[in-house]
Amino acid sequence: MADRTYLDWNATTPLRAEVRAAMIAAMDVVGNPSSVHSEGRAAKALIERARAQVAAALGAEGQDVVFTSGATEAAALALAGREIHCAGVEHDAVRSWCIEDLPVSASGRITVADPAHSAVQLANSETGVVQELPEGLWFSDLTQGFGKIPFAFNWLGCTAGAISAHKLGGPKGVGALVVRRGTEIAAQLKGGGQEMGRRAGTENIIGIAAFGAAAQAAAHDLEAGIWGRVEKLRNILENAIADRAKETIFVGKESHRLPNTSCFLTPGWKGETQVMQMDLGGFAVSAGSACSSGKVRSSAALRAMGFDEEQAGCAIRVSLGPDTREEDVMRFAEHWLKCEGKHRARRG
Amino acid sequence: MADRTYLDWNATTPLRAEVRAAMIAAMDVVGNPSSVHSEGRAAKALIERARAQVAAALGAEGQDVVFTSGATEAAALALAGREIHCAGVEHDAVRSWCIEDLPVSASGRITVADPAHSAVQLANSETGVVQELPEGLWFSDLTQGFGKIPFAFNWLGCTAGAISAHKLGGPKGVGALVVRRGTEIAAQLKGGGQEMGRRAGTENIIGIAAFGAAAQAAAHDLEAGIWGRVEKLRNILENAIADRAKETIFVGKESHRLPNTSCFLTPGWKGETQVMQMDLGGFAVSAGSACSSGKVRSSAALRAMGFDEEQAGCAIRVSLGPDTREEDVMRFAEHWLKCEGKHRARRG
Repeated sequence: MADRTYLDWNATTPLRAEVRAAMIAAMDVVGNPSSVHSEGRAAKALIERARAQVAAALGAEGQDVVFTSGATEAAALALAGREIHCAGVEHDAVRSWCIEDLPVSASGRITVADPAHSAVQLANSETGVVQELPEGLWFSDLTQGFGKIPFAFNWLGCTAGAISAHKLGGPKGVGALVVRRGTEIAAQLKGGGQEMGRRAGTENIIGIAAFGAAAQAAAHDLEAGIWGRVEKLRNILENAIADRAKETIFVGKESHRLPNTSCFLTPGWKGETQVMQMDLGGFAVSAGSACSSGKVRSSAALRAMGFDEEQAGCAIRVSLGPDTREEDVMRFAEHWLKCEGKHRARRG
Repeated sequence: MADRTYLDWNATTPLRAEVRAAMIAAMDVVGNPSSVHSEGRAAKALIERARAQVAAALGAEGQDVVFTSGATEAAALALAGREIHCAGVEHDAVRSWCIEDLPVSASGRITVADPAHSAVQLANSETGVVQELPEGLWFSDLTQGFGKIPFAFNWLGCTAGAISAHKLGGPKGVGALVVRRGTEIAAQLKGGGQEMGRRAGTENIIGIAAFGAAAQAAAHDLEAGIWGRVEKLRNILENAIADRAKETIFVGKESHRLPNTSCFLTPGWKGETQVMQMDLGGFAVSAGSACSSGKVRSSAALRAMGFDEEQAGCAIRVSLGPDTREEDVMRFAEHWLKCEGKHRARRG
């Protein structure tokens, strides 16, 4: 795709070069990790190396990282069959299993009454708003925070957390549930003792090796301060837009946010229309979180923050990554402002 | 690994060259298949192409192939929460969800009373015994049969079937549930509308593209008759062993079997010991199905066929693949017979 600018890093990220190399190397590993012969043991070693890499990047213990097919499965593993409370800003993969009754402020902050029976995301995928997790929390969706903001799982105060490889330069279809030492998790997929009896099924070893490499590279980038540069670009973008589009509201801007995320709504201009106009101009952005049906609904997260249906339907999310350059952001702002001007002219 | 001979193709297979190429090509696809922009649509197209490839290889309709993280998840999707009967020769991923009360003959054949509430595997992973599926069957584990014996899902007579990529030259960690048109399957993973609402979670697009390529290549191989050659090698192996190890029993030999599988038990010589001695000699084989805990238990499948605990503990499985050469099989037979001779000498 020539002349495309990808500004949808919260939906998914391009593969890192290190990840690509790790996947290609793992393609040569023949064995089933459950087999006792030499080929099986080599496959098993690859998984355990990746588990150690993910644990180190996460600040957790290796034996407490349970590889899954993604954060959606990890959330189900921690939440299904329990009576857990959550707020409307959580991802559908969390909301589907929870009692949705925790209040959210206009700035996106969640109030928790009973941490041991609650789920609170570390950072919101749409607005980037970062939560303070209460001590003793049962579950946190760490998917958007992992790799973008510094934290150590062992010090976060939550008992279980979900992570996903494809948000930090790994492949889609692999994630993990991380739990604090001694936490009992009953397998939902049965019929094999893989993942210490917590998740049956032959392991996605190429994906798991890739996740290890992605986590290690993301931790290195985080430590090297690359997100400070990304945050500056995000702020340049928001200032360029705010200067000229006076009606545009930046959602969650008053809160602590992920360094790469900007969510803004422009009353009367549908997010869906904006996404299409940006796509035609060569820019990939989104309206709300990636909507699996291919349709665009108004954001449940924004409605939970108090925006009405009409307002929530007029937001888009721009999310940057380590590869984003200042010129990408400036060209995007220019194109968006041109379209916004036309939109205003049409409205008269 | 120098001088290794891999004879454990029913546990898992090496990646096919076409699969490797498909995976590397898919690494360049950046988007989330749920995103509406150009990058998202390209990712979605890749999945739909793979779905068509798998459906064609399987003799099914594309819209009825639901990609999962493997056959274990596919079995859970079709079996959990239903009262389905099965036999003791089924894989643990099936047995875990079923009422295990169907009788099995000494030759490995399953008798079904109520097909609409039963699960019957197409072929057994340990013995290779192929079943005639009764018309109106609810579920069949097609994992070992797919790619090795000709069938069309639409003519098999079962409503749902589980398949796995890594048994036919694809990667581990991707599979599918295939269902007959109009079959209702309620999602177990929730929080997104992927897979037509039947399985939430961002898709493993690299793995899915690989599965498509693997299924297509396997169907091509099957049509080209490569398994006839493999079957001859399997028979050469069995004859070489039978000629000199008179006490050795070939399990299921009187039944219709997969062309590549040989399961034989030698009274008094533990399968676990045989596997280790073969491994030291450079040969990867297994005792029963790949046991996820790394321990080797006596085969439940063999016990279901009427062998006692002691006998079932003395079996090994040798499973060949398209890359297996006659010299591999002859060197294996020679090494096995040498070890068997020593074993007999020790027993006196």
